[in-house]
Amino acid sequence: MFFASDNAGPVHPKVMERVIAANSDHQMPYGKDTIMDEVRTRIREVFEAPEAAVYLVATGTAANALALACYTQPWQTIFCSKVAHIEEDECNAPEFYAGGAKLSLIDTDDKMTPAALEAAIAKQAVGNVHGAQPGPVSITQVTERGSVHSLAEIKALSAVAKAHDLPVHLDGARFANAMAALGCTAAQMSWKSGVDVVSFGGTKNGCMGVEAVVFFDPAKAWEFELRRKRGAHLFSKHRFLSAQMAGYLQDDAFIEIAQTANANAAYLAEGLRAAGATFLHEPQANMIFARWPRAIHQKLHDAGARYYLWDGPLEGPANEDVAARLVCDWSIGRDQIDAFLSHF
Amino acid sequence: MFFASDNAGPVHPKVMERVIAANSDHQMPYGKDTIMDEVRTRIREVFEAPEAAVYLVATGTAANALALACYTQPWQTIFCSKVAHIEEDECNAPEFYAGGAKLSLIDTDDKMTPAALEAAIAKQAVGNVHGAQPGPVSITQVTERGSVHSLAEIKALSAVAKAHDLPVHLDGARFANAMAALGCTAAQMSWKSGVDVVSFGGTKNGCMGVEAVVFFDPAKAWEFELRRKRGAHLFSKHRFLSAQMAGYLQDDAFIEIAQTANANAAYLAEGLRAAGATFLHEPQANMIFARWPRAIHQKLHDAGARYYLWDGPLEGPANEDVAARLVCDWSIGRDQIDAFLSHF
Amino acid sequence: MFFASDNAGPVHPKVMERVIAANSDHQMPYGKDTIMDEVRTRIREVFEAPEAAVYLVATGTAANALALACYTQPWQTIFCSKVAHIEEDECNAPEFYAGGAKLSLIDTDDKMTPAALEAAIAKQAVGNVHGAQPGPVSITQVTERGSVHSLAEIKALSAVAKAHDLPVHLDGARFANAMAALGCTAAQMSWKSGVDVVSFGGTKNGCMGVEAVVFFDPAKAWEFELRRKRGAHLFSKHRFLSAQMAGYLQDDAFIEIAQTANANAAYLAEGLRAAGATFLHEPQANMIFARWPRAIHQKLHDAGARYYLWDGPLEGPANEDVAARLVCDWSIGRDQIDAFLSHF
Amino acid sequence: MFFASDNAGPVHPKVMERVIAANSDHQMPYGKDTIMDEVRTRIREVFEAPEAAVYLVATGTAANALALACYTQPWQTIFCSKVAHIEEDECNAPEFYAGGAKLSLIDTDDKMTPAALEAAIAKQAVGNVHGAQPGPVSITQVTERGSVHSLAEIKALSAVAKAHDLPVHLDGARFANAMAALGCTAAQMSWKSGVDVVSFGGTKNGCMGVEAVVFFDPAKAWEFELRRKRGAHLFSKHRFLSAQMAGYLQDDAFIEIAQTANANAAYLAEGLRAAGATFLHEPQANMIFARWPRAIHQKLHDAGARYYLWDGPLEGPANEDVAARLVCDWSIGRDQIDAFLSHF
Repeated sequence: MFFASDNAGPVHPKVMERVIAANSDHQMPYGKDTIMDEVRTRIREVFEAPEAAVYLVATGTAANALALACYTQPWQTIFCSKVAHIEEDECNAPEFYAGGAKLSLIDTDDKMTPAALEAAIAKQAVGNVHGAQPGPVSITQVTERGSVHSLAEIKALSAVAKAHDLPVHLDGARFANAMAALGCTAAQMSWKSGVDVVSFGGTKNGCMGVEAVVFFDPAKAWEFELRRKRGAHLFSKHRFLSAQMAGYLQDDAFIEIAQTANANAAYLAEGLRAAGATFLHEPQANMIFARWPRAIHQKLHDAGARYYLWDGPLEGPANEDVAARLVCDWSIGRDQIDAFLSHF
Repeated sequence: MFFASDNAGPVHPKVMERVIAANSDHQMPYGKDTIMDEVRTRIREVFEAPEAAVYLVATGTAANALALACYTQPWQTIFCSKVAHIEEDECNAPEFYAGGAKLSLIDTDDKMTPAALEAAIAKQAVGNVHGAQPGPVSITQVTERGSVHSLAEIKALSAVAKAHDLPVHLDGARFANAMAALGCTAAQMSWKSGVDVVSFGGTKNGCMGVEAVVFFDPAKAWEFELRRKRGAHLFSKHRFLSAQMAGYLQDDAFIEIAQTANANAAYLAEGLRAAGATFLHEPQANMIFARWPRAIHQKLHDAGARYYLWDGPLEGPANEDVAARLVCDWSIGRDQIDAFLSHF
Repeated sequence: MFFASDNAGPVHPKVMERVIAANSDHQMPYGKDTIMDEVRTRIREVFEAPEAAVYLVATGTAANALALACYTQPWQTIFCSKVAHIEEDECNAPEFYAGGAKLSLIDTDDKMTPAALEAAIAKQAVGNVHGAQPGPVSITQVTERGSVHSLAEIKALSAVAKAHDLPVHLDGARFANAMAALGCTAAQMSWKSGVDVVSFGGTKNGCMGVEAVVFFDPAKAWEFELRRKRGAHLFSKHRFLSAQMAGYLQDDAFIEIAQTANANAAYLAEGLRAAGATFLHEPQANMIFARWPRAIHQKLHDAGARYYLWDGPLEGPANEDVAARLVCDWSIGRDQIDAFLSHF
Repeated sequence: MFFASDNAGPVHPKVMERVIAANSDHQMPYGKDTIMDEVRTRIREVFEAPEAAVYLVATGTAANALALACYTQPWQTIFCSKVAHIEEDECNAPEFYAGGAKLSLIDTDDKMTPAALEAAIAKQAVGNVHGAQPGPVSITQVTERGSVHSLAEIKALSAVAKAHDLPVHLDGARFANAMAALGCTAAQMSWKSGVDVVSFGGTKNGCMGVEAVVFFDPAKAWEFELRRKRGAHLFSKHRFLSAQMAGYLQDDAFIEIAQTANANAAYLAEGLRAAGATFLHEPQANMIFARWPRAIHQKLHDAGARYYLWDGPLEGPANEDVAARLVCDWSIGRDQIDAFLSHF
């Protein structure tokens, strides 16, 4: 009954197979392995972007911080939701990599609205040397609250950015979950919606530790390579990053794994709803924010269920409602979900 | 015939086994996995340092840059050999992580001498606000030229540092190869010789991508954790770093693997010597810097041998001597070495 | 009729005299001038802090950024009002000097409340490696909206900081104006109210370009000296900074100059009030935020008055109210104020 | 008898007059003062560069660090003499402002040779992601040893830089002294010799604290303005920087002041030579490095002479030669020099 995070489950067999297969002979280090050639080609296909510059790193924070740094000057500010991962969960990594740039937070508990983004950008007047200059807009898809931006919503945010000549970054730690939820293509959810650079997540969706950074403007390639090395994120035995991503992309495994995770969450949500839980955000991918009486949390806790309480402690009045965050990965079995629900 | 680097070979089976075994169920992320508990205990045993703070990262540059940053203020300078990896091969990562600190280079083609180190430190007068203040001393063991500092040599360098109240870092990307060469313990080659923090390498010696940072002063623990996260080097599926290191340390596999690599190099060096090659540095671990006529390089190249020419191009007078760098990993077979030597 | 800022007026004669007097013979450079000895002694007297470490820089941004950097780790966040100068008017200098730290903005149009500060600090959980760690609290006195914190208000904010073991910085670009408004001592408005380090402004209050940084904990001295030099803020002909500050402090000139500026603003505010203007914030020092019909703004503009329109353009419906920011310095004559008011 | 530095003397009357004259009425802050318009025009005339971007800061370190930062990426290295001010006397300010870039030191006790510069640049292979990438070349004129590069020497160094597509910075803390020594124009000593950006010093040559940064490529203007503000080097009462520079440039005062300082040094050097002193470097501007017996140093010291001993302490065998550094500013009188020489 492990619902604490999708970064805690095992590696998917299709990914692991390629890792194991990669372990023979010598391969050129530092990204010059032949598997990376396959990965580069495949990502360009998946994104319908034959010119894209494609790189691999091992953590989502590295993908975000390095991608943003390529589009941010130290005297600029990055626009994002105040609950974005880059704000709340990266311990100043974006600021570090961008040389001391700022984050301008849009006041929302989930998605940014175009109007709020517009207001935030307008506040940082271009040409006023006293304030931070406007920098990139970063959108999180799936959001940190489990919502999925529609393509129209991404386009609307990008349009605001473009009207100010600002680049757009997509934090796609759960990119595949969002694709699965929307039933759209990777191209639709990125450059066709105005996105300039994507952190394309693998780790949370069945990989061991790999994220791709995809630049639709290949002019950023060399700068990224230098920033990656300077950040100590260039792997010598890079083939093991490549192999993960190769397995992940092969036969669209990434979509299939995400569909499984999303379906698990839908199944759990349905059960919770039937049991009377209420939802803070409508679950659209593999994350659930729901609320039910503390007494049930206590039973679940005693039974060994793992998840985060969101707005209150385990101790307290038994019939008081407390919210929880639940995340399903591909590996969580229906038996586990049923066992979880049995406590309601 | 792959002698280009020890970062290009496969993962040792003893390491790979643990990685595969780790791939089941859910594990707490971000270093809270149970395998890390095993690794921490084991490293403290290996280093005879029951209080040591132990962390894992995936690249040698990350280990060095993060370890040094914990001991360097931005207005200080790090003392190292001018051929150190942190100077020549890390694209300003140490400077980046240390907030813009400087490196003061000791002029040597291999090891620093205590006298040269003393002179370099003395130059950076403590209390002179105009110059950089003295910071840590970084020693590379095995050196970038394949030499191994004796314990006495490490102690002599540490003594210079300590006389100035400066901390000592050991870049041990090939720590195990040095231990195997010296036949000493990890404790003797580190804190017993005055070293405060070690980058304990795994990647070049049969791992997939893992290095431990070992602080003998546990007071550095929390700062390191923050720096690691801020640098985007904290793995969510950390168990796969732990598993590598667990396999590496199990039954002293790291020593055995290093002995194999060193023995391969010794066998190759013997063959080269017999064939008339001369040596730039006496090979002591798994690296060889040797010189022989270009005609033989050309034959080797045509036969598909991979290694770096050190001081001249492949094209030129056939009987002119050209130096080469050759590195043996554990996986290079004697048949490969014999095949290589057959071209002489 | 210049009310655009108090950083645009002339240097007060008492300050200028000392600058001119300092211009003879040779003096040791870099803060070792004898006038600095006088300044150090005098500031310690003024602040009743015989152990304080005292330094001079030439800009308010330098004072703030350097003072904060001495109390901020790169993985921390600084708490301040969202309208603080360090957020809105320093082009990421605090982030730059603090190595990429963050600012956490308290949502207010003027002063922070203790409750809002408490909530902001509580959000950055100590020991959570994913989020920024809590850092110093920065209070602006006089605020950017012309309000003055009472001593009780400063103490209440400091108490919140101290309850979390956080240091307190006071941005006192208009420190003397606040002292004059409160009729309190420098000690009361700083360390006696829980402040650890003060940016003690001179420039806006009749100096040429000088601010003191006063650390009540002298243990910060050497770090500040290194940060100042590394930031390129250590003057070689430092005596000319010292001389300004010496003149500023002599016979409490700084209080007298501030009283003049405050009295000018009070006189102007009284006139505006009589003329029917309304106030966005009750003016307490030398800044006024007031609102009156656009037609009068247009007349003032045509007459050459200089000040900032705060919430609307000069063009528009004549009888619509538009707010203005007006700042009085010591040098603005009553005749200028009367001339200004004559247009109402 | 003050020969310790040219940053310790008084401000020249022609400069001081303008400072005093600037002290009336209100002026727009932050470089929008009318005196700055005059300065900009005048510097463009002096440098025969009608398009140049011209800015003022208060310290030489700020000028150097900000100018270099505009031409240096954080993964690059700046090439300079190992005795350059930016290496020895700026406490890592260039590294700080350039985001953690490196300095590559040319091994010389004075000027770089083109051959040594070429070798240093060649070592940092373009396109090798592991090493620092080559960045700007910084030339110091007058050198830190009192030598003056001929125009041919500057051109030869620039030619090396240009052959590698690298920009050239001139640290001209004593620019006017060099112009006076060479009898050349500012244009000849800068852009006509391949220099892209100049730190044009005022402080050491009779100003209070002002340096101009002159970019011959105006495309750098806005980036510099942002870097200057972010570095906390933008003065609000900027007119007092402008006024110094205006006085300095008026009627070529800067040349005249430098000629006086150089003549003072020549007179002193002549006297020393006649008294049997030997020279470490042939004095060409206003600095002297000379050697004479310790007994005379002791007499000078007892008589209150101020200068730096260069290679030994005051205490020791009386007849042993010890070197000294002596710097003459414009204000040191012939009577002082004669008094100094009288002790030989």
